[in-house]
Amino acid sequence: MNNNLQQSMLEAIEKELQHQVARLDQPRSRQFHEMLTYHMGWTGEGAGSHAAGKRIRPLLTLLVVVASNSSGGDDAYWLRAVSSAAAIELIHNFSLVHDDIQDNSVMRRGRSTVWAKWGAPMAINVGDALFVIANQAILDLAKYYPAEIVVKAAGILNENCLDLTRGQYLDMSYEKRKDLSVDDYWPMIGGKTSALLSSCTHIGALLGYANESKQESYRLFGYHLGRAFQVQDDILGIWGDETVTGKSAASDLVEGKNSLPILFALEKNGEFAKRWREGPITGKDVLKVSALLEDEGARDYAEKMSEVETQKALGYLKQADPRGEAGETMLGLANKLLKRNQ
Amino acid sequence: MNNNLQQSMLEAIEKELQHQVARLDQPRSRQFHEMLTYHMGWTGEGAGSHAAGKRIRPLLTLLVVVASNSSGGDDAYWLRAVSSAAAIELIHNFSLVHDDIQDNSVMRRGRSTVWAKWGAPMAINVGDALFVIANQAILDLAKYYPAEIVVKAAGILNENCLDLTRGQYLDMSYEKRKDLSVDDYWPMIGGKTSALLSSCTHIGALLGYANESKQESYRLFGYHLGRAFQVQDDILGIWGDETVTGKSAASDLVEGKNSLPILFALEKNGEFAKRWREGPITGKDVLKVSALLEDEGARDYAEKMSEVETQKALGYLKQADPRGEAGETMLGLANKLLKRNQ
Repeated sequence: MNNNLQQSMLEAIEKELQHQVARLDQPRSRQFHEMLTYHMGWTGEGAGSHAAGKRIRPLLTLLVVVASNSSGGDDAYWLRAVSSAAAIELIHNFSLVHDDIQDNSVMRRGRSTVWAKWGAPMAINVGDALFVIANQAILDLAKYYPAEIVVKAAGILNENCLDLTRGQYLDMSYEKRKDLSVDDYWPMIGGKTSALLSSCTHIGALLGYANESKQESYRLFGYHLGRAFQVQDDILGIWGDETVTGKSAASDLVEGKNSLPILFALEKNGEFAKRWREGPITGKDVLKVSALLEDEGARDYAEKMSEVETQKALGYLKQADPRGEAGETMLGLANKLLKRNQ
Repeated sequence: MNNNLQQSMLEAIEKELQHQVARLDQPRSRQFHEMLTYHMGWTGEGAGSHAAGKRIRPLLTLLVVVASNSSGGDDAYWLRAVSSAAAIELIHNFSLVHDDIQDNSVMRRGRSTVWAKWGAPMAINVGDALFVIANQAILDLAKYYPAEIVVKAAGILNENCLDLTRGQYLDMSYEKRKDLSVDDYWPMIGGKTSALLSSCTHIGALLGYANESKQESYRLFGYHLGRAFQVQDDILGIWGDETVTGKSAASDLVEGKNSLPILFALEKNGEFAKRWREGPITGKDVLKVSALLEDEGARDYAEKMSEVETQKALGYLKQADPRGEAGETMLGLANKLLKRNQ
């Protein structure tokens, strides 16, 4: 039954995403439309569910709609909120398309990135279009919700989008800095990862007509879930099992990413910090450097922080008191996101 | 009195723009905020009214609010709509920042472009932030307008933004094409120039509580004003007086821009088309090539089309029947935009 609900939601999300992106499916903009459908994982070489990504954000949004629903609506109540779920996924994808240009990344989800395929000028425009369509999708809520709710939902989404640009700015500005510490980590992650996850749970609760206090609990659940998830991802980026993560272990070390374990060790200013400042870490140094990092306590610290954030997230979820099976499915999704076994 | 109204509006617009952009004026994002205030013309070397641009779009929006106002509100009624005017100006500026990256342009309004100053990755993010803030600004209408109106205004703005990305796509896709004709011109210009000007007049009339039929007349006024303006700009880009336009005459020829006179002559497939296909036109060829273009009737054709579009625009404006002094000021603004003497 849980799996049925999740499956129905995922199908509805995909259909809605295609419906939204089809705004560009017109005689003169067919190729432009194709750039978007390629990025979304539907067309081109390597198309399919792996290329599309897991759609965790829109799924979380719809699960919160159901779990927070105080109106006692019918079973398919969540269908009316599906355009908001699509909006959040489109925002996520707009940020990926621009991020890939900014980071000079040529591969994503096992395929060429949009800019690698069509050039940066076209890719900037593809990201812009995804962003516009996201705004149109959230406004489509007006078909089923009072305009006051739609204005609030669009307000939450755009506030979190501004956080996203702020996080992106910090991330890029850190590249040249040599004085980073753990304090610089949270504001960056708050924008880059937590903001959009808090949009999912906040907007979900708003559309479930939860009261203000429950909306706030859900919002904070998403926010801390984002923090826990990002720290977990940082740990896997250095010590992860390649066969599980799909990217080579320790790749964050080679890429010089300012992740939490690294900022912890830089602040400590020991052997690792000395090596880090000497210049890029290459493949053959990786094992030695990651062991050094572990010896200096960076892994323990990150695991502790991940656990702290996870407990906060679960505490807020308990406060939110999610309803029935959607609540259980959501807990399962959160655990999956955090790669926890229970 | 007309000048007083215009001056009051321009001051209110500038104040509102600064208020909106100040969302990024926070301890950790000061430099990011500065990138936006630089682009808006308020800070950095060369700051001032020339660097800021003419703010024609937001001014037009507010003039339509007053000229279409059927509610008989007080004199400063338009102040309640100022966040929508700011939203449109922010959209215009978001598109300029991304356009400059896409076109590889290092100068705008006599100063370095954002990407030339801070690099393309930062500039992509600056454009994104301007877009987010534009959406937040239009939602701010909710302070003074019913939520239904706010949802409509945001819907119009985003629909025109999607046209903008479509126009941008066409413009970029034309760079490699050799088979362009006049038919390819209007869809590109409809997105790149007319869409946002129709947002100004359409949203202005919506916020003046004009009825649906008047809203449509105002929308079409803005749309054709945009077409007339763009054709006029195309003419000046080849035969303009440097001292008036501020850019070197015939620069569109050197840049190989697919403007209306050029598409006309390419379709005609005469001497000009032959020369165009041979490769870039350099400074010393410019006079000869622009004379060739004029001989083949391209200038006459463009001037005729500009006049046709101007008459359409003025016809719709007459239908809209703008009220009192704001109406006169608007007509003056339209004539100024079209560089007409009457």
